[in-house]
Amino acid sequence: MSRFWNNKVKELVPYTPGEQPKDKKYIKLNTNEFPYSPSPMVEDIIKNYDFEDLRLYPDPDVSELKNEIASFYGLNTENIFIGNGSDEILAFAFMTYFNSGDKIYYPNITYSFYPVYSDLFDLKPETIPLNKNFEIETDDYKNLDSGIILANPNAPTSIALGRDQIEEIIAANKDNIVIIDEAYIDFGGESVLELTKKYDNLLVIQTFSKSRALAGMRLGFAAGNKELIDGLDKVKFSFNSYTINRLSIKAGTAAVKDSEYFLKTVEALIKTREKTKKVLKEYGFFVPDSKANFLFVSHSRISGEELYLKLKDSGILVRYFKKPGIDNFIRITIGTEKEMEIFEEKIKEILKQNK
Amino acid sequence: MSRFWNNKVKELVPYTPGEQPKDKKYIKLNTNEFPYSPSPMVEDIIKNYDFEDLRLYPDPDVSELKNEIASFYGLNTENIFIGNGSDEILAFAFMTYFNSGDKIYYPNITYSFYPVYSDLFDLKPETIPLNKNFEIETDDYKNLDSGIILANPNAPTSIALGRDQIEEIIAANKDNIVIIDEAYIDFGGESVLELTKKYDNLLVIQTFSKSRALAGMRLGFAAGNKELIDGLDKVKFSFNSYTINRLSIKAGTAAVKDSEYFLKTVEALIKTREKTKKVLKEYGFFVPDSKANFLFVSHSRISGEELYLKLKDSGILVRYFKKPGIDNFIRITIGTEKEMEIFEEKIKEILKQNK
Repeated sequence: MSRFWNNKVKELVPYTPGEQPKDKKYIKLNTNEFPYSPSPMVEDIIKNYDFEDLRLYPDPDVSELKNEIASFYGLNTENIFIGNGSDEILAFAFMTYFNSGDKIYYPNITYSFYPVYSDLFDLKPETIPLNKNFEIETDDYKNLDSGIILANPNAPTSIALGRDQIEEIIAANKDNIVIIDEAYIDFGGESVLELTKKYDNLLVIQTFSKSRALAGMRLGFAAGNKELIDGLDKVKFSFNSYTINRLSIKAGTAAVKDSEYFLKTVEALIKTREKTKKVLKEYGFFVPDSKANFLFVSHSRISGEELYLKLKDSGILVRYFKKPGIDNFIRITIGTEKEMEIFEEKIKEILKQNK
Repeated sequence: MSRFWNNKVKELVPYTPGEQPKDKKYIKLNTNEFPYSPSPMVEDIIKNYDFEDLRLYPDPDVSELKNEIASFYGLNTENIFIGNGSDEILAFAFMTYFNSGDKIYYPNITYSFYPVYSDLFDLKPETIPLNKNFEIETDDYKNLDSGIILANPNAPTSIALGRDQIEEIIAANKDNIVIIDEAYIDFGGESVLELTKKYDNLLVIQTFSKSRALAGMRLGFAAGNKELIDGLDKVKFSFNSYTINRLSIKAGTAAVKDSEYFLKTVEALIKTREKTKKVLKEYGFFVPDSKANFLFVSHSRISGEELYLKLKDSGILVRYFKKPGIDNFIRITIGTEKEMEIFEEKIKEILKQNK
């Protein structure tokens, strides 16, 4: 510890991203990356880019990508904010809509970056337990006295609320900001992007790291009414004017343009997920109904930690959270059909050894 | 204003980046971009990149680029931090080394993002006036009671302190963090990177946006003793694990590798700067001795604002700051030799009209 760290930094416990091991080649089912390449249009546009222009700052407003997203989702450009990954937008949202000392409500089991942000920005987290089926009970989120953040589908449980359920929560918290983190929405959930036109207290955040296959380019976006977006802009322009580089703007724009590829690859992923889900159920796993690009599963005969370690031994990385309530689970990112077949084989072997 | 903005955001006055007009093609001498292309190795490495990998998260530690920088400057990897532009590092540094309410010392005329960060993170700025020649008086920065940030060369004055002068300040503030922002150091200033081995209170920040010709890719780095760097890492990993994307890592690494191109283009820029300086002096301008890639100049016969507007009319953008003490100056980024010849012609015409 340096004597120059401030009091906050001394206590800070950062978020731990999933392992990115460099020692050997794993089948990586641990960080919810998309198993298919980005749209071929991404490669085209970058290879044909005028590299001389990299000497120039990017457009700080990221207008080209904002316009493309707005047009794809039937929103207006002024309702879109672009971030360097959706995590950056989450950080800015915590900085924009909460005063130090404010309460913030989220489930006791959810994306583990929310407690880190709460800590970093001095908020008071009020965690609300999931029900015994690992679901969010919408009634628990009505008429609260401060802002709410919900991942939908929730992570790492994979379970989604329907649009109507989310709307109930938004409508029952008209004086509170409600942030819906839709990182995994494209895999079968119902987005509430459209509701940003109806409610001034709703901010929806999505990412290009999952369904758009661009985790490596760092892009996310938020949608909300103009004044909510203006607030994010004020914070961003007080933090770093140019968060999105020239090639990311081009890559993101191409990925949104190629909607055919997007729909086709997402459909393939959902098909693989349903197949894997079926197999795991046959093997006796508890498998909640996932609307995400991952499954969150447990087995009565083998612990989550043991599963994680045995899979790692056999060259497959999944994510294990050593946390109360979910420490018997593993989170399995859906890979290609071939990867999931190998995974299913390994699981079968491991279960045999644990008879 | 949204009713969901917090108290801080309501009052926040963001940094204003230089104009990036889309209406017509200007000779852009207003945002201190480098006039030459990035190293050809940048284009090569990106064009040969395996685009399938863009579906995967980047290395959150950015090790490849850290190693390259460490090796180029004779430092260790553990002493390097990489940011999404040097502005992001500045923001993280304000978040790491200062408690809310702390004082921070910087010149009354300097990079105008420092007051914005001070405001965003609730610090108390103590501004110290430059002397009548627009220089930093080193004695004013000795034995202070809180942290210091200095741009060297200073912006927008273009004037540099020598290494010995900076070391005097660091040595006379052993219990205070001293941040030296070396965004423009490669154009003739003396870097204190080496002194990070000697002083545990020194953080040096540099950028790839100027001498490395990569403003469009958003890269900066900081160097300091391991514990200072660990603090920045704690904050970064509590904010956004993956701030640097895959192509930026590759671009930055290639730019550092191609040291021959770097030295050649920087030398060309310095030559052009000295030529422009000489011409402007002949025209009667006050021109401080710039060690940056820009000149900060004033003329007794025409106001800074008028100069700025007339140049803009004739297709040349320079930067004008409507601020007390410097409102008679313009800041001129050094472009290519050809661009500067056009600029000199226009200046000559404008002065003729103002006889």
